[in-house]
Amino acid sequence: MNIILIERQEIKSGEVVLTHRRAEHLVKVLQVQPGDTVRIGIIDGPKGGGTVVALGAKYPFWVELQVQFSEGVIERPPIDLLLALPRPIMLRRIFSQAAALGVGAIFITNAQRVEKSFWNATLLNAEEYRPHLLQGLEQAVDTRVPDVYIYERFKPFVEDVLPERIQEYSHLLIAHPGSSSTLKNVITTRPERILLAVGPEGGWIDYEIERFSECGFTSFSLGERILKVDTAVVALHARLSERRENFS
Amino acid sequence: MNIILIERQEIKSGEVVLTHRRAEHLVKVLQVQPGDTVRIGIIDGPKGGGTVVALGAKYPFWVELQVQFSEGVIERPPIDLLLALPRPIMLRRIFSQAAALGVGAIFITNAQRVEKSFWNATLLNAEEYRPHLLQGLEQAVDTRVPDVYIYERFKPFVEDVLPERIQEYSHLLIAHPGSSSTLKNVITTRPERILLAVGPEGGWIDYEIERFSECGFTSFSLGERILKVDTAVVALHARLSERRENFS
Repeated sequence: MNIILIERQEIKSGEVVLTHRRAEHLVKVLQVQPGDTVRIGIIDGPKGGGTVVALGAKYPFWVELQVQFSEGVIERPPIDLLLALPRPIMLRRIFSQAAALGVGAIFITNAQRVEKSFWNATLLNAEEYRPHLLQGLEQAVDTRVPDVYIYERFKPFVEDVLPERIQEYSHLLIAHPGSSSTLKNVITTRPERILLAVGPEGGWIDYEIERFSECGFTSFSLGERILKVDTAVVALHARLSERRENFS
Repeated sequence: MNIILIERQEIKSGEVVLTHRRAEHLVKVLQVQPGDTVRIGIIDGPKGGGTVVALGAKYPFWVELQVQFSEGVIERPPIDLLLALPRPIMLRRIFSQAAALGVGAIFITNAQRVEKSFWNATLLNAEEYRPHLLQGLEQAVDTRVPDVYIYERFKPFVEDVLPERIQEYSHLLIAHPGSSSTLKNVITTRPERILLAVGPEGGWIDYEIERFSECGFTSFSLGERILKVDTAVVALHARLSERRENFS
């Protein structure tokens, strides 16, 4: 936890009282004392500092902070993800890692090779996945929560939702191990916003690739090695970022 | 498991009999039948195909394969890792992810901010970590096991071991959040071999950075976001690969 994230509603007269997980972290890991200052941020808002006013050093822990926010909000990361619903244990890791790396939005939809049972995962409820996004932000010292959109049916998603959505992207990319293009081939101008589609274990089927292709997506591959979806998401995000910085 | 890995000694008269985990995967996941062919590779050797001769479809599973090896060994990946010993649960993930992404060698040493207890991890024994490396290779369809070198004391490592080792690298890089350089600044010619040093949670201390610097390492940063070590390793490997391909 490299920043303490709070909801705006928690602030009363310039102060906030933390309990549970956040208080325990401050007391036990950071071992704060009255007068100490810690990094704090308002979720989807600015960052700043919190000065410890008082604390309860024994269970149940609590910490009272006087807070001030001076820094602006980090701008929206230029990469969004479109995922075929991964296995819940992977999706959990993807939520926190994507939030840590920085993404603007995560679209989740179905694919032929997604196991039907994955759609029953409780992790698809906002109250279940939001803590994983916040963990990623706490790690990366960011406050902006990625938007999450879930579309359980593939066809209505690509036919009705995606055509509207894609307007805001300069690059629509689909990672597809069969492709003969590399990122170097498909990103030849500075990307403003990228939407990156990553398939399920086993990949997209031809029908799905064709639908994406009709929407304007371009396929590329990272080479012959087959990666797990969670590793692939991190590696792809990093490569896109590196490729993008090439133009700056 | 996208390739079945075997030890050369398992082959008798062109055949191999699998049991336990590999047999169970073939029988239960791939549901092979006699006559089917599966991808197979000799550890640190060539890849090829295995044709199912006979199998035991009920517990305890077994599969007899007739094997042939035609493809050459993938060349040694051009990136090696130097890690401050991470928390065992992270190291386990790093072993399999690094093997999946492709690294030639992994050097592990100490650092000021490494918790002493990590050095008691059973994972530091080859019989414990090798299965994680093999899992990464099975995922990525590779046969070459990364070399692992463990040096528990930092000073003898940087003073006696590293100066010899670094001869073979064209680029010695150290990821350091404080640095003002980016990869674009520090890789300006096509890298032949890269040694990438990644610090512990909390980073290297100044003394350590100075020792690496004396050996010829150049610092760079990926930006302001702080990543967990396992996420950082994947992201850094991907960015180095992308940057390298820029020159090809």
